[in-house]
Amino acid sequence: MNIKEAARWLRERDNFLLLTHRRPDGDTLCSAAGLARGLMSIGKKAYILPNPEATDRYVKYMGGYFAPNDFVPEHIVSIDMASENMFPDNAERYVKSTELCIDHHLSNSGYAENSCVMPECAACGELIYMLLMELVWSIDKETAGLLYIAVSTDTGCFAYANTTAQTLGIASKLVAAGAENAEINKFLFRTKAKSRIELEGRVLSSIRFFREGTIAVATVTRKMMEETGASEDAMDDIASLPGQIEGVEAGITVKEMVGGGCKISLRTVRRVNASQVCARFGGGGHMLAAGCNMSCTVEEAAERMAEAVDACWDTL
Amino acid sequence: MNIKEAARWLRERDNFLLLTHRRPDGDTLCSAAGLARGLMSIGKKAYILPNPEATDRYVKYMGGYFAPNDFVPEHIVSIDMASENMFPDNAERYVKSTELCIDHHLSNSGYAENSCVMPECAACGELIYMLLMELVWSIDKETAGLLYIAVSTDTGCFAYANTTAQTLGIASKLVAAGAENAEINKFLFRTKAKSRIELEGRVLSSIRFFREGTIAVATVTRKMMEETGASEDAMDDIASLPGQIEGVEAGITVKEMVGGGCKISLRTVRRVNASQVCARFGGGGHMLAAGCNMSCTVEEAAERMAEAVDACWDTL
Repeated sequence: MNIKEAARWLRERDNFLLLTHRRPDGDTLCSAAGLARGLMSIGKKAYILPNPEATDRYVKYMGGYFAPNDFVPEHIVSIDMASENMFPDNAERYVKSTELCIDHHLSNSGYAENSCVMPECAACGELIYMLLMELVWSIDKETAGLLYIAVSTDTGCFAYANTTAQTLGIASKLVAAGAENAEINKFLFRTKAKSRIELEGRVLSSIRFFREGTIAVATVTRKMMEETGASEDAMDDIASLPGQIEGVEAGITVKEMVGGGCKISLRTVRRVNASQVCARFGGGGHMLAAGCNMSCTVEEAAERMAEAVDACWDTL
Repeated sequence: MNIKEAARWLRERDNFLLLTHRRPDGDTLCSAAGLARGLMSIGKKAYILPNPEATDRYVKYMGGYFAPNDFVPEHIVSIDMASENMFPDNAERYVKSTELCIDHHLSNSGYAENSCVMPECAACGELIYMLLMELVWSIDKETAGLLYIAVSTDTGCFAYANTTAQTLGIASKLVAAGAENAEINKFLFRTKAKSRIELEGRVLSSIRFFREGTIAVATVTRKMMEETGASEDAMDDIASLPGQIEGVEAGITVKEMVGGGCKISLRTVRRVNASQVCARFGGGGHMLAAGCNMSCTVEEAAERMAEAVDACWDTL
């Protein structure tokens, strides 16, 4: 389905339940909230299925759009969900009955009855903006704010490589429509909890370099998290730290898990196919960002990953 | 002068020498380079007076537009320069002979014969973009890249409160015209020198809090700079660190100077008039960002500033 067809599909129906993905980010949550508000503005009922993993960081903006207990949905629409694996536990019963999937992942598995997928959008929020322009024609200040959060979080406030002329053009229209970009940016991108500052200091001190400084490995131990009191929110985007160091082409972050074992993130700039490296350990992902799990100590995991990255040099 | 008048003024003349300000940033340097390239594209000669304080960070992009030794200018144009104080030493002889000032500072002192000042622009680069649209009608990929650097650096990659719908709209047009935003962002906003990472770790560890965590004071000693080998480029924007901590409404950064004494930066969110606090010590600046110097130790300067901020609470 293209935008026009998706808009018509929504216009002809009512009582929508919107689904958001596991480990929800600003794009899935605020795209869904923006669509819910847009649909409500033309007299329809639309709510988001409460997402058990949603954190305060975004709930403070979009929590009001979660479905009340007595809401009886007629149509299920998934937002920013590439595959069946991304359905949270409480949404699994809707895997087979999702009638429309609105997404921007190239890897979308096509699980829904109808799909409107636009991989050229950096954020699903861009797609929702275009959909609302087709469906509602204009957006109010609050919807603009929600979609601004969606677009800005998926592009690292327009700094990531996925940011396009379209992304910036839509952001411009959202700010013109009243999105309070200064306040939102201050909260999401220019404020750090004290615990995050302390955790970041320790993680940065932990970094070791390999292959003449082109591979950097950071470790995040339970001890660091306990001593700094860092929450899961405070961990946001910590995996991007080692890759931001000058000269580093592969940044590895090893996080010690509760109850043992490690979760590993790999970010690469070029030369190394991150997905291929992580597949060696049963993981996967994208070419420049992938992950895997290991059931060993943090130190062993760091060594193994650095060796594997070295062995996969120039695979991209 | 408005944009149309400034464009006509430039169209009717030739052989321009463009001036950039003291402690030059991406906006003054790359706005000037973008204007130089735009003027050259319509057959005129335009060069930038070499700026002795320009750092590699920007010279790698715009160094090619510095004037050759044998260039004989006919007209002097200043870019992003609010007052006579902003003229670098080697430009002081042009203070009286500046014929056109192109700037976006509300505080512009009107020192030039003609001024085209637009305070509604977050970056001078926005103004240069509109000027080139009037003068040249279209811009090439390289000019777009230069103006993208100008606009993105003055707005912290679109995260600062000065970013408007116009800023984002112009950035969108620059990317559409070929600006390599992904590469530029990676270099300017998502890469940190190892020395910067180490310095940042130490500066963050130095932070002390006052007034129930609403005032944060960071110190940057010569020892920290020497031990980490941090360059002046690596110091960029370090004064914004304490103000980024959750709950902090006044962030103070005290930097020890070579040969003794301290340079102090104050950033406030609300409540405190930064300019008023710094005026107590003979300094000045804006309401939310100001600075001053003190001839005492780092510790004494930190105490005095924290007390002064406390005494000036609710002055805004």
